[in-house]
Amino acid sequence: MTVYLVGAGPGDPDLLTLRAARLLGEADVVVHDRLVGPQVLDMIAPWAERIDVGKDPDGIRTTQDRINELLVDRGRRHETVVRLKGGDPFVFGRGGEEAVALGAAGVAVQVVPGITSAIAGPATAGVPVTHRGLSSAFTVVTAHQDPNGEQDLDWDALARIGSTLVILMGARRAASVRHRLLAAGMAADTPVTIVVSATTPQQRTFRLRLDALGATTVPNPAVIVVGAVAANDVLAAMPDPTPTGPATAAATATATAGPDRSPDTDNRRDHRAAVAALEGVAPWP
Amino acid sequence: MTVYLVGAGPGDPDLLTLRAARLLGEADVVVHDRLVGPQVLDMIAPWAERIDVGKDPDGIRTTQDRINELLVDRGRRHETVVRLKGGDPFVFGRGGEEAVALGAAGVAVQVVPGITSAIAGPATAGVPVTHRGLSSAFTVVTAHQDPNGEQDLDWDALARIGSTLVILMGARRAASVRHRLLAAGMAADTPVTIVVSATTPQQRTFRLRLDALGATTVPNPAVIVVGAVAANDVLAAMPDPTPTGPATAAATATATAGPDRSPDTDNRRDHRAAVAALEGVAPWP
Repeated sequence: MTVYLVGAGPGDPDLLTLRAARLLGEADVVVHDRLVGPQVLDMIAPWAERIDVGKDPDGIRTTQDRINELLVDRGRRHETVVRLKGGDPFVFGRGGEEAVALGAAGVAVQVVPGITSAIAGPATAGVPVTHRGLSSAFTVVTAHQDPNGEQDLDWDALARIGSTLVILMGARRAASVRHRLLAAGMAADTPVTIVVSATTPQQRTFRLRLDALGATTVPNPAVIVVGAVAANDVLAAMPDPTPTGPATAAATATATAGPDRSPDTDNRRDHRAAVAALEGVAPWP
Repeated sequence: MTVYLVGAGPGDPDLLTLRAARLLGEADVVVHDRLVGPQVLDMIAPWAERIDVGKDPDGIRTTQDRINELLVDRGRRHETVVRLKGGDPFVFGRGGEEAVALGAAGVAVQVVPGITSAIAGPATAGVPVTHRGLSSAFTVVTAHQDPNGEQDLDWDALARIGSTLVILMGARRAASVRHRLLAAGMAADTPVTIVVSATTPQQRTFRLRLDALGATTVPNPAVIVVGAVAANDVLAAMPDPTPTGPATAAATATATAGPDRSPDTDNRRDHRAAVAALEGVAPWP
């Protein structure tokens, strides 16, 4: 008789919370999104009813009203219903709307926060969203506009804050994001890191400048980080014992594949950038 | 020979990730902060060396340089070292600095993201940091200034964004936050929710207006949420079958205790506010 709004985290099943894992094993019904990976779904008990309400950008959508109806119906008939969402249920997950619908129908609802890709995506690419001397704040936005258009962001203010900007669901609107931030006065050489399929075996990281954002196709799902922190990779395994001069390739996008971090040349260069940044020397060309 | 920068989450041990829990059981050494709770520390293997480098606001501090030295030393001598931090290691946790210090010393480092109280704190009080029609972005800042003063935030820009503002470590500077946001033009009646000791049995929630923030002492540790979403409690268990008129007490701070959510009067009123907000009716007096 309780619906749990559960965050499934960014992809890696090891980043589920203990509570989320336990609830998946206990649930009578699991209503899940498209972005929840197969290894997470494998943790659902075999007897549970599974309902996929995934919203593919090109495919069939389950409307939010229909999802709310489903949750109310199952919540009334079953002891434990899990509404499983990629990331955190209250970070662009419409979990708040579902909670209100359930509350209005008299169905008990609880929230189980999840790891959001907005923070974990950059982190696994070695980009801390805050870093002393570089950024003491971060803002998370979505480039996926509300169809009602009522939620136009103040991009001028976003550009002015001067700290880290994290853009979710921005792959298809990357060029639009570039235009808006440049128009708002953000510097063309502002560092950008794009993390695709964060925390999964398919994770890829691209490093570029703001004026190159959207010049080539950005794969989905992507987390885009804009700001001084994006020039760094604080997880680079080792300093380069034989420096090879300034990072001349930095103005073009470079990709490093996979969460398995070998101490390759790119990482060494990024590490020098991180150290330079920490010492107050601009690491970007 | 690896140091893992591990997020311990906001307090509730059930909000640890599966990976964090496993690493705590395997670690040879755990270097932890003050804000990590006893139940989380109980998950450390009995044979492991435990080092408390907690920084009490009034007590003895371990300097960041000393912590870095400790991590490098233990990282060179042991197979698995866990650096355990409250929340997420890269959200004001100085995890980036520790990662850079370890990398510079040739010690392998990995990050295990944790649930940040910036999102989970409001969530457990029924406040989603994003909510369609109310806020399509959120910014996380700390009111705890860098002693070097180099990271002055642009509070005017913060106030202008018009979305959710989450302030960590703001208990002692609550009045200063109020002054800066009002001076930046934020409305006096902007809703504020303060969540103290989020996700622990000591959790308390205070709801007030911006112009009352800091008028009374805010207990530590507190997450302060400013913006339209802060007027709501989307987790309120039930609609009130007998409405009692407008919420006249809303201009003064009201507190609801504990994460155990009984359908009391406050919750019912907050639920109406949430429904009203969703329907586009201003829920605040």
